[in-house]
Amino acid sequence: MKYITSLINTEIKSIVKLHNAKERRETNKCIFQGIRTIETALESGLKLDKIYITQDNLKNTINLFNKFNLSEKLIRIVSDHIINKISTLKTNPGLVAIFYNKKFDINKLNEGLVLAQIMDPGNMGTLIRTAASCNIKSIAIVEGTDPWSTKVIQASAGTIALVNIFELSWSELLEIKEKNKLKLYALVPQNGYSIDSIKKDNALLVVGNEGNGLPNQWIEDCDRPITLKMPGNTESLNAAVAGSIALYLTFCKNI
Amino acid sequence: MKYITSLINTEIKSIVKLHNAKERRETNKCIFQGIRTIETALESGLKLDKIYITQDNLKNTINLFNKFNLSEKLIRIVSDHIINKISTLKTNPGLVAIFYNKKFDINKLNEGLVLAQIMDPGNMGTLIRTAASCNIKSIAIVEGTDPWSTKVIQASAGTIALVNIFELSWSELLEIKEKNKLKLYALVPQNGYSIDSIKKDNALLVVGNEGNGLPNQWIEDCDRPITLKMPGNTESLNAAVAGSIALYLTFCKNI
Repeated sequence: MKYITSLINTEIKSIVKLHNAKERRETNKCIFQGIRTIETALESGLKLDKIYITQDNLKNTINLFNKFNLSEKLIRIVSDHIINKISTLKTNPGLVAIFYNKKFDINKLNEGLVLAQIMDPGNMGTLIRTAASCNIKSIAIVEGTDPWSTKVIQASAGTIALVNIFELSWSELLEIKEKNKLKLYALVPQNGYSIDSIKKDNALLVVGNEGNGLPNQWIEDCDRPITLKMPGNTESLNAAVAGSIALYLTFCKNI
Repeated sequence: MKYITSLINTEIKSIVKLHNAKERRETNKCIFQGIRTIETALESGLKLDKIYITQDNLKNTINLFNKFNLSEKLIRIVSDHIINKISTLKTNPGLVAIFYNKKFDINKLNEGLVLAQIMDPGNMGTLIRTAASCNIKSIAIVEGTDPWSTKVIQASAGTIALVNIFELSWSELLEIKEKNKLKLYALVPQNGYSIDSIKKDNALLVVGNEGNGLPNQWIEDCDRPITLKMPGNTESLNAAVAGSIALYLTFCKNI
């Protein structure tokens, strides 16, 4: 185990750079924070780069290191100052880990979820967490926020490591849909078909932007618009909630 | 219409005080921000105290004033500086309104939702929004965050005005349960009964704290623990999502 005490250590500086999307894209690395989130990533088999931990937290996490047989070479003991510098959370998470995110061949996209132009990292992470709970493997990300940002990873409670994230354009999605014989179901706030009409085999549920929904052309490109029936006299549900209910009804209702 | 230009005007100062829970409790007033949220509150019949608007926004909202036949006496024209001071949002919402929140006799509590020790205002607001979409009228708040805080109101998209909020203790809830012949269903992450076993008449769905769930004694006090079946190998759903799916399956599935 190596000790790092300086805030201007080059390794520490390189992690701070990962707070930016451009650096994450170039290095293929991302930041997981807190023991439960990191444990989920380790369980999924995501490749660990390094783990940073305070001396105080070392006792509490020794079981984690043993469970996953982590090499001491990957562990860095650091001060609270350093954790606060590399962490993006308001409260010190005690440990921070850098992982390599997995890249998936977009041709392998299968039934699951499409997040189209989702801008709020909390919503994206929440929808990924619900999808993981529904045992969905394929999640297509079309535009919107970066799925490997710290906010998305934390809102997913680390479950982003359990699913396959495919980043692609809408036109690429339409090509894969033809090739893999997938059906696209656009979740729309009104005038769509009943969710009971979705057959889950080969189904991709498409959830659009929080404020504006899906572009009209994209809805037309889908096989069918779907609307959750709601008896209340309100305009719509929160995007993450609407998508989560639709995911549950499509992929979990008969278990 | 009255113009206010000074940041130290006593009326402006009294609104800033409403950012604190204590002041909200003592005055029975609360803050709604942005046109859609305020429109929802006006439609619900919530009693307006005053509305604060910038000169620039006056044109866009004249329809709102006409629609609800608002007295000019309730309207204040203010600067962006003042909106920023009385608003709690990061971006200027253009208009801010003060409403009187309704108090409901806890003996009138009926089928619906119990939010027990929910600490995150975003989760509480989201669950209230889902409940309103399910046409649920009774929402019991037991401990946790203040339902009339600006964060809860905004996360509910103003739909908190469409439901009846009952603030009471757990022991009061148990008394009302007996008196009104209600059934309490505790949402728990594992080992509960199927959600299909809930009969919605007289049902109160109980959602607990995000991190710790419900206290064991409270689960025992309920008629039945309920668990959402999930095929994925993840620890649990986000609290607002789990509660929202359970609400939908209980109160909306047969519409």
